[in-house]
Amino acid sequence: MSTEALKTLLNNYQLPTPLGFGQEFAPVMYRADYCDSRWQQGTLQAFGEIRINPAATAVQFAQQAFEGMKAYQVNQATPALFRPEINLRRLNRSAGRLCMPDVPAELFAQALTSVIKACQPFIPGSTGQSLYLRPTLLGTDPNFAVKSSEKFTFLVLASPSDAYYAAPIKVMIERNDCRAALGGTGANKVGGNYGASLQATQKSIDLGYDQPLWLDPVELNIEELSGMNFMAIIDGALHTPKLNGSILPGITRDSLLTLAHQLKIKVVERTMPVDELLNDIDTGRCSELFASGTAAIICPLSELGEADGTRRQLPQVDNLAAKLKRALLDIQEGYALDMFGWMVTASDTEQLYKRLKA
Amino acid sequence: MSTEALKTLLNNYQLPTPLGFGQEFAPVMYRADYCDSRWQQGTLQAFGEIRINPAATAVQFAQQAFEGMKAYQVNQATPALFRPEINLRRLNRSAGRLCMPDVPAELFAQALTSVIKACQPFIPGSTGQSLYLRPTLLGTDPNFAVKSSEKFTFLVLASPSDAYYAAPIKVMIERNDCRAALGGTGANKVGGNYGASLQATQKSIDLGYDQPLWLDPVELNIEELSGMNFMAIIDGALHTPKLNGSILPGITRDSLLTLAHQLKIKVVERTMPVDELLNDIDTGRCSELFASGTAAIICPLSELGEADGTRRQLPQVDNLAAKLKRALLDIQEGYALDMFGWMVTASDTEQLYKRLKA
Repeated sequence: MSTEALKTLLNNYQLPTPLGFGQEFAPVMYRADYCDSRWQQGTLQAFGEIRINPAATAVQFAQQAFEGMKAYQVNQATPALFRPEINLRRLNRSAGRLCMPDVPAELFAQALTSVIKACQPFIPGSTGQSLYLRPTLLGTDPNFAVKSSEKFTFLVLASPSDAYYAAPIKVMIERNDCRAALGGTGANKVGGNYGASLQATQKSIDLGYDQPLWLDPVELNIEELSGMNFMAIIDGALHTPKLNGSILPGITRDSLLTLAHQLKIKVVERTMPVDELLNDIDTGRCSELFASGTAAIICPLSELGEADGTRRQLPQVDNLAAKLKRALLDIQEGYALDMFGWMVTASDTEQLYKRLKA
Repeated sequence: MSTEALKTLLNNYQLPTPLGFGQEFAPVMYRADYCDSRWQQGTLQAFGEIRINPAATAVQFAQQAFEGMKAYQVNQATPALFRPEINLRRLNRSAGRLCMPDVPAELFAQALTSVIKACQPFIPGSTGQSLYLRPTLLGTDPNFAVKSSEKFTFLVLASPSDAYYAAPIKVMIERNDCRAALGGTGANKVGGNYGASLQATQKSIDLGYDQPLWLDPVELNIEELSGMNFMAIIDGALHTPKLNGSILPGITRDSLLTLAHQLKIKVVERTMPVDELLNDIDTGRCSELFASGTAAIICPLSELGEADGTRRQLPQVDNLAAKLKRALLDIQEGYALDMFGWMVTASDTEQLYKRLKA
């Protein structure tokens, strides 16, 4: 597609109403291909279907990794990204785990700024809104044998999005299915983790919950939700499962722990046996539960239950959770001092590149 | 593509030399799409790239399942399939595990016979050769949120193939990475299992082996190879890990166990602690190891080793393994009486459908 055609496409684009979260696709995406052991020049192109060999390793063997991030343009003239260097580092750890090449900082910066600058006129600007971004890495060589691709495609997809409406959720402890085991891909953001979670999600919905809570398959310690980390307020302290190698190291998780420290809330990263937590709820020591992720920042839990119908309500819903969420969103939207240097402008490729390399 | 164009494509097709295993793509594939809660009429079409939304669940969340099977046209006038009803049953179990719809027997029969009949003129006919078939099911709805697709694509890809040359392999016990845990997707043929295995395969190759041997992450019992089941001859009996819910229920595995019974070889399906097996090798009780799968039927192991360089040679390589492989191949190629009724003609849709429904 010519630059002129792309311009016309962007000029004619209008945000739908209602917008929703992650439901609308931006009219453009960025694509770069890897072959002969190096990344080729990428381009901004119209968003749409890609052509892929049905025997490609991404299709057959889930040789795939992705990231979720947001560009914010609330209360500020140009869009900004939140800790994008951690997304890049995590993407490249996921890539390595699945034998895919690193996405270089130059390419990551170029791809993000290209998409964000093209979409800047219609990044929604009310609080909570954003341009959701989905960097994606795919193995494209066709192989019937189980072997790594030597060709790859890197895409950055985007979605102008409303605030993610995080109504308190009811969570079901999943005691049959398992999301990840130590040595698996649980700490990586790769497709296989998510496909494997769909059955338990459906079961939880069928039983009147919203989502499952995953346990590790060996000791039945709490791991995470399918797309969010898990946090509990116990005796006033913020407890969360430690990064044990099988849960995703969430960027929101890490940021909330930092903010909690700063707000003088004690933080405890530890192994969390599920039965101990249930006991802490029963005795009143655990006052509040919530989950954290890029989309919602924080999603409060109103209920923690079992497949057999046992349900525990939480005494507090969205109390400390709301305070922490506000503190983080205020930084992302420029209402609070960015004291940790988390934000970086997303409209200057060179500046973003320097940040990613740092 | 018109029927006429398809005919021309097929008429002009010539097998390459050398052919290899699973390297050559047949010029046609079958495709059917699922939407509005039902399967639409499928068609035979030219093999080639498909168009898919880059945010499709198959691409982003590995909502995908596949099968591997062979059509044999050795020593017989028309191509035949081997126990295809088990492939269909397994495909539908995999589909269910990942919240995808069943592939109906009618569709499976129609797709297989369409591809096989179109390819019949060039299915190679020397012993060991076959038309390798890859039924594939993909979630095609674009979703940034982790939820199941409501649209799916079913494909049957094919590859005219030489015999899989199964030189004895050197296998490394993988003690860090984990392929699957109980409650995961290890017993299903889904992409995520295979992508997750690539890193250990690469490590094994870097250390001078061919493939890793997977253990369960809890008890360190032997599970399987990345694409083959594991078998050991101990005190003259055939021992293999029992189907524990996290290893793939191989069709070749099942068939070899049946043949072993018939050959008066004692069969023991059990939990196999890896250290016990190592001890059995050291004391000479274990005489032979091999792996089983559709591609190779049997692949003998010459060596079982560790990442630290400890290597154990096997006293016998391809002894009982060769006998079992011959017995199975003789049935598949019509040289031996098909006493278990495993073969079914692949050129009659109605007959295949009846078999699949039985």
